[in-house]
Amino acid sequence: MNALKRYSRKEMLDLFTEESKLNRWLEVELAVLKVRERHQLIPTGVFEKIRNLSSINTDRIKELEKSSRHDLLAFVQSVEEQIGDLSQYLHLGLTSYDIEDSALGLLFKQAGELLLDSLNKASGALRSKATQYKKQLAIGRTHGVHAEPLSLGVRILGWFSSLKRDRERLSYALKGVSFGKISGAVGNYAFITPALEKEILDELGLEIEPVSTQIVPRDRIAFLVTTAAVATANIERIALQIRLFQQTEVGEASEPFYKGQKGSSAMPHKRNPILCERLCGISRLIRSRVTPVLENVSLWYERDISHSSVERFVIPEIFILLDYMYLTLFEVVNNLEINTSLIEKNLKLLDGYIYSEELLVLLQKKGLRRGKAYQIVQGLVNTAMDEGIDLKDAIKHNPDLVSIISGQELDELGKPDIYLSNVEDIFARCQE
Amino acid sequence: MNALKRYSRKEMLDLFTEESKLNRWLEVELAVLKVRERHQLIPTGVFEKIRNLSSINTDRIKELEKSSRHDLLAFVQSVEEQIGDLSQYLHLGLTSYDIEDSALGLLFKQAGELLLDSLNKASGALRSKATQYKKQLAIGRTHGVHAEPLSLGVRILGWFSSLKRDRERLSYALKGVSFGKISGAVGNYAFITPALEKEILDELGLEIEPVSTQIVPRDRIAFLVTTAAVATANIERIALQIRLFQQTEVGEASEPFYKGQKGSSAMPHKRNPILCERLCGISRLIRSRVTPVLENVSLWYERDISHSSVERFVIPEIFILLDYMYLTLFEVVNNLEINTSLIEKNLKLLDGYIYSEELLVLLQKKGLRRGKAYQIVQGLVNTAMDEGIDLKDAIKHNPDLVSIISGQELDELGKPDIYLSNVEDIFARCQE
Amino acid sequence: MNALKRYSRKEMLDLFTEESKLNRWLEVELAVLKVRERHQLIPTGVFEKIRNLSSINTDRIKELEKSSRHDLLAFVQSVEEQIGDLSQYLHLGLTSYDIEDSALGLLFKQAGELLLDSLNKASGALRSKATQYKKQLAIGRTHGVHAEPLSLGVRILGWFSSLKRDRERLSYALKGVSFGKISGAVGNYAFITPALEKEILDELGLEIEPVSTQIVPRDRIAFLVTTAAVATANIERIALQIRLFQQTEVGEASEPFYKGQKGSSAMPHKRNPILCERLCGISRLIRSRVTPVLENVSLWYERDISHSSVERFVIPEIFILLDYMYLTLFEVVNNLEINTSLIEKNLKLLDGYIYSEELLVLLQKKGLRRGKAYQIVQGLVNTAMDEGIDLKDAIKHNPDLVSIISGQELDELGKPDIYLSNVEDIFARCQE
Amino acid sequence: MNALKRYSRKEMLDLFTEESKLNRWLEVELAVLKVRERHQLIPTGVFEKIRNLSSINTDRIKELEKSSRHDLLAFVQSVEEQIGDLSQYLHLGLTSYDIEDSALGLLFKQAGELLLDSLNKASGALRSKATQYKKQLAIGRTHGVHAEPLSLGVRILGWFSSLKRDRERLSYALKGVSFGKISGAVGNYAFITPALEKEILDELGLEIEPVSTQIVPRDRIAFLVTTAAVATANIERIALQIRLFQQTEVGEASEPFYKGQKGSSAMPHKRNPILCERLCGISRLIRSRVTPVLENVSLWYERDISHSSVERFVIPEIFILLDYMYLTLFEVVNNLEINTSLIEKNLKLLDGYIYSEELLVLLQKKGLRRGKAYQIVQGLVNTAMDEGIDLKDAIKHNPDLVSIISGQELDELGKPDIYLSNVEDIFARCQE
Repeated sequence: MNALKRYSRKEMLDLFTEESKLNRWLEVELAVLKVRERHQLIPTGVFEKIRNLSSINTDRIKELEKSSRHDLLAFVQSVEEQIGDLSQYLHLGLTSYDIEDSALGLLFKQAGELLLDSLNKASGALRSKATQYKKQLAIGRTHGVHAEPLSLGVRILGWFSSLKRDRERLSYALKGVSFGKISGAVGNYAFITPALEKEILDELGLEIEPVSTQIVPRDRIAFLVTTAAVATANIERIALQIRLFQQTEVGEASEPFYKGQKGSSAMPHKRNPILCERLCGISRLIRSRVTPVLENVSLWYERDISHSSVERFVIPEIFILLDYMYLTLFEVVNNLEINTSLIEKNLKLLDGYIYSEELLVLLQKKGLRRGKAYQIVQGLVNTAMDEGIDLKDAIKHNPDLVSIISGQELDELGKPDIYLSNVEDIFARCQE
Repeated sequence: MNALKRYSRKEMLDLFTEESKLNRWLEVELAVLKVRERHQLIPTGVFEKIRNLSSINTDRIKELEKSSRHDLLAFVQSVEEQIGDLSQYLHLGLTSYDIEDSALGLLFKQAGELLLDSLNKASGALRSKATQYKKQLAIGRTHGVHAEPLSLGVRILGWFSSLKRDRERLSYALKGVSFGKISGAVGNYAFITPALEKEILDELGLEIEPVSTQIVPRDRIAFLVTTAAVATANIERIALQIRLFQQTEVGEASEPFYKGQKGSSAMPHKRNPILCERLCGISRLIRSRVTPVLENVSLWYERDISHSSVERFVIPEIFILLDYMYLTLFEVVNNLEINTSLIEKNLKLLDGYIYSEELLVLLQKKGLRRGKAYQIVQGLVNTAMDEGIDLKDAIKHNPDLVSIISGQELDELGKPDIYLSNVEDIFARCQE
Repeated sequence: MNALKRYSRKEMLDLFTEESKLNRWLEVELAVLKVRERHQLIPTGVFEKIRNLSSINTDRIKELEKSSRHDLLAFVQSVEEQIGDLSQYLHLGLTSYDIEDSALGLLFKQAGELLLDSLNKASGALRSKATQYKKQLAIGRTHGVHAEPLSLGVRILGWFSSLKRDRERLSYALKGVSFGKISGAVGNYAFITPALEKEILDELGLEIEPVSTQIVPRDRIAFLVTTAAVATANIERIALQIRLFQQTEVGEASEPFYKGQKGSSAMPHKRNPILCERLCGISRLIRSRVTPVLENVSLWYERDISHSSVERFVIPEIFILLDYMYLTLFEVVNNLEINTSLIEKNLKLLDGYIYSEELLVLLQKKGLRRGKAYQIVQGLVNTAMDEGIDLKDAIKHNPDLVSIISGQELDELGKPDIYLSNVEDIFARCQE
Repeated sequence: MNALKRYSRKEMLDLFTEESKLNRWLEVELAVLKVRERHQLIPTGVFEKIRNLSSINTDRIKELEKSSRHDLLAFVQSVEEQIGDLSQYLHLGLTSYDIEDSALGLLFKQAGELLLDSLNKASGALRSKATQYKKQLAIGRTHGVHAEPLSLGVRILGWFSSLKRDRERLSYALKGVSFGKISGAVGNYAFITPALEKEILDELGLEIEPVSTQIVPRDRIAFLVTTAAVATANIERIALQIRLFQQTEVGEASEPFYKGQKGSSAMPHKRNPILCERLCGISRLIRSRVTPVLENVSLWYERDISHSSVERFVIPEIFILLDYMYLTLFEVVNNLEINTSLIEKNLKLLDGYIYSEELLVLLQKKGLRRGKAYQIVQGLVNTAMDEGIDLKDAIKHNPDLVSIISGQELDELGKPDIYLSNVEDIFARCQE
């Protein structure tokens, strides 16, 4: 029931309280008054008076909502009670979503900044780990099967690179939701002008929706959520990879295990990658919210309210959980235990078969047709595997190959150099 | 943040509190002790003593979890503190998910019963409305366009019929999650026997998972959630239909609008179908949870814990929200305002073109080839529509048709009888 | 573009051709004629004549559809061309979906049978492998980390058990789509009776939709697709597990690798679990189709046609791909290469720490409080891991433990017996 | 089975044939040769010779794939057969996905251009219709219920505005997939340099993946697909709206109905919005593909191939169907039949209640507290509705209001001017 709280940090959580929302509503109402007063549409001093008299009373608002069944109206009524006759100027010619959607734009700006901070922490930790292991050779795997060596640092740099893409995408999508609208019922500007709307939104630091209905069109939120879902997929990829590394047989890396921590109620020896598994789980949760926000786009006519219950769940979830994911990723990466001795051990596990491409390239360079060369190498490796002998030994026992390949060439086979020679260039083109 | 609470009833909510969960955990631990004592595997009296000494202390458990980072172990530790030396018999040879999953089975049973009650309320209201309007003719529409008359009662009976299907499906799926397992770590029965497991689960009223891993396989939960998603789709269909009826131009039915309720902060005249829109929104929410629970099925080896964060969200959501949907549907249907005068008015809107099939059938019966008959009728209707004249008038002005169709046949055209003649048979085959 | 064909078998594919569909349409039209003739609603002999004269001409139908933009009508027109004046009896008082949905019911029956055959093949292979490895001890893992030993046969039996559940669920869901309706436009039975409908559907071997609209309600299809998605999740779980086993470091099992097969264009040594990876991919595809069919349920009024494009894709996909998945799973399981020597090797990898629960249980039985015992064992294992010594040695070097644990008890620790002792009982309760 | 073809245009379809793909593969192989020759890594003339000798033989490749079970290798083998000894230079030190993913980048560029063309057609039609109906007053609706008047042109401009956002987003996402990689197996650059890679991709007009694994990371494709899903949601919104307008009772607009077209096999009078319904259905299809591509991101280690089957389906679908949606939208909008007489009629349907906000604002301006004013207006409207009298009449019969509101003010109430006064400004800020 408090699942969301369980996976959150306080600063982010605080933005999503009822009180925080009501304060943003008030902020928007006040901005309208301020601009109207500036244009002498209401008497001088009204804005200041209302600002001083009004404050948020969550309990009273909740009570008022019971009879009106309309949360924004209950809020307006509560302010009316505080400002008395001045209420003739309040919410004048406005519709609820002038307030609600502009306030939502404010929330997106605030929560978006926190989110990008967390992303930056995680991405900084990744780049730092990548640099640290730039020259560490490790076995690369495809399909879970040993392929060829690579730089562990470059592998981690790839993860950094994915977060860099997400930072750009999320910034782009967050910019697209920092919007408001003060265009009145059905967006017809019957009691306000586009010029005034612009001034009000400027006050709030928001962009104007060029053509609003009664609300800001929901594709903006949908795009933010889909972009967040892509971001979680990249976190999931990293978490899944660490889980693969932490398997007993692989053992190349593991997430931190704290003093006092217990892995299993039955088996005291267990140290499990529970943080990374949690990241995978939360990623499923966020991903699942893509569909409802896409379904929210097709509202009827100038709006229906079917999107509202969806957004009550999804908007907090997206920010709180994604923020938590980045902070957890930071914790995991920053404290990642990398086991270089097992990395070295694993590199040798396949008796040199991982250099089969080196041999293939060598044979092609000697002038063999590609297909012929491939056939020779595959045959050689298969036999060697069956007999349990090392690749170089297999070459030495093959008369045809011995006649083509020199001793020095054989020595060169499997040297780490070629697998690390371009590392600096790769780092150079993937800056912070 | 309290979105789930907003759309809930208390009885259901109470099942999903932390305390309620911990009590179920204790219930399972006690059942294990009881059966072990019965088989003299632990000294006589131990079960009774532990039952008397142990109780749930949520705060203490929360505190213990901070260091162990393992919620079930924190619970066990808290009980240990209460029972002292007797703890040598506690959780003996068990793994956390012996307790957690069996307790989950208990939750499913309890919550499932509440859920089916709510479904029954909604479905009862539907059948009653259906019966009430059995003989009420209304225009049937396909593609939103007038088609032919039908019985309003049969239309509503169709909704009842869909809930009846869901009742059967949900019962089937709930039966499939009323399962537990007491098979120990990795499900290897190293410290317990299948026979003992059966007795323990019998105590709890649960079925045995025939082959468990460390946990009960997650396809059971997945199937429950997908079945719930189908159920929400049927509710959504009804809610969407009522929204269509409540459009100003259609006006055939509307959900209740309460005294004091306000439809819009800008427009005092508004009465909006917000309950039905909310049902549509919540349906999107539930539907979205299908994917994560399907993704939860593929856990690694004998389990990983990536499913856990997902279930913390999804399991309460499914029960609480679906239950709320049925109760809201009940409220809407029970208080549905049906406007028979507008229904009658709409029936006449298309000047008799809705009887085009009657005419087509008549011409076929007169011996015309089907294609020819269709061509005549479509042409006739098109011209009539363009000229704005009624179908019968159009027939009368068409010499070819006049020569075929008798005056009496013309009179018969569009009589309500044929559209209601089979109503009793339909009701008869769709019992409670 | 021919992706679906790539992952299919011919028998199943053939059911989904245009021609196959058109033949089913004709079958339904003929059944209507047959029953009407039986009740003397049309002259004797008409059914026989029309059956003899009519046949499917796909090209002609495609041509006719161009102008009518209505596929069912084009089919009817094509039959009309073949039967001439008899067309006065054709499609009389029927609506397109009387034909289309009843024909769809026929398709579901036919395709469902093929599907269950494939499931049975896969499940048979699983049970046979399970039996073969009943007594083979292997390491059980949770979170990818070594936990405790288990029977490899029981592990595979768990997979079998999941397919058994799916067989039951799929049968249940397939029964729920073997439905038809002959209730006319908007389901109003204006030109047909429920009694006649029943006879026609009996002819076709289909159940009656108790309350149809113009179509059979779409929750039936939705339920089939969600059930199929659950089934794919269980296949994915097995495929994912085999991928985990085929990792170079784990090596306990691998899918077949055929003569002439090539694993990589660059690396001739590669043998990759591509079939299992494909199963995981296809599982994503099928799973993704759950949402659109759920969205299809909420059609407007007595129907709209928004579901049609969705079903053109999803229905063939579900049957063809799921069928292919079962056959591929059969191929993989039937030819699974299990490497028992690596299984044995892996069992010893953790130097006996996997027996930590045995030690914990032993200490509890000696009268230690559970918490105390856990603390001792976790401390012992942690130190042993750091120092790289075996669990038994660690015990021997611990004076406290030596004073409690006898030599014989130490010998007993880690004996395979307790991990296999309940195997027969488990198999007994999970029959074919 | 040919569902995709059914909803496609030829130019787009052609990009997705097997042959088209193979030609792109060849193009990439040739670019590698060209650049290597430029750097004298292979003898002068080799590139030209190979280009002249090699061509695509789909049948032969299909045959070769049967034994290798590897489609890229089959292609390479087929080229080898054509170029003989020159094959020693072919695919040297490359991995399949150097070719496949770079060729995919080419496809994205080509298909992306076609897609944006179609979007532009649709968006042009929308802006043109918007301008045409700039001054046409229509009733605005929220929750399907009459709210206040608005400019029909502005409503349509809002749709245009949503496509404008999608054009920007899609361009951004398409830029993000116009990437390639020539970094060899596991992306380790063992046999190629980043500098050479850059030249090759420049030849192809593609950007470089800064840190590739064996493949281009899949979040790029995921982001494209999610962005496409947002785009479909906006199309769906428009299509849904037109369906709402085409309801018999509303009748404000309808999609084109062609000569010879038939709406129903039973009811010759039917004209249904089947194109818009189809757009809604296809939107569900595209939306459903978001999840699998997000799941595709978390590949294991340096790659697994589970994404491949998914992409075989999803990539063609996204481009072909979205392109088709835009062209269909163009057709619908361009031929949209707008019924201004029904629009005018509907405006008057609610007897002036739609001016309740005007009255509310007027009362607030007269100095009434907002809450009081709201109460008066809601009460007035409710009574008027019950009694079936017009709003102005209701005011006239209310002594309190008559004393406050002047005759002239009463006359002003409901004048169209205020609802159209800002139209030019709105158009001005939403340029092409």
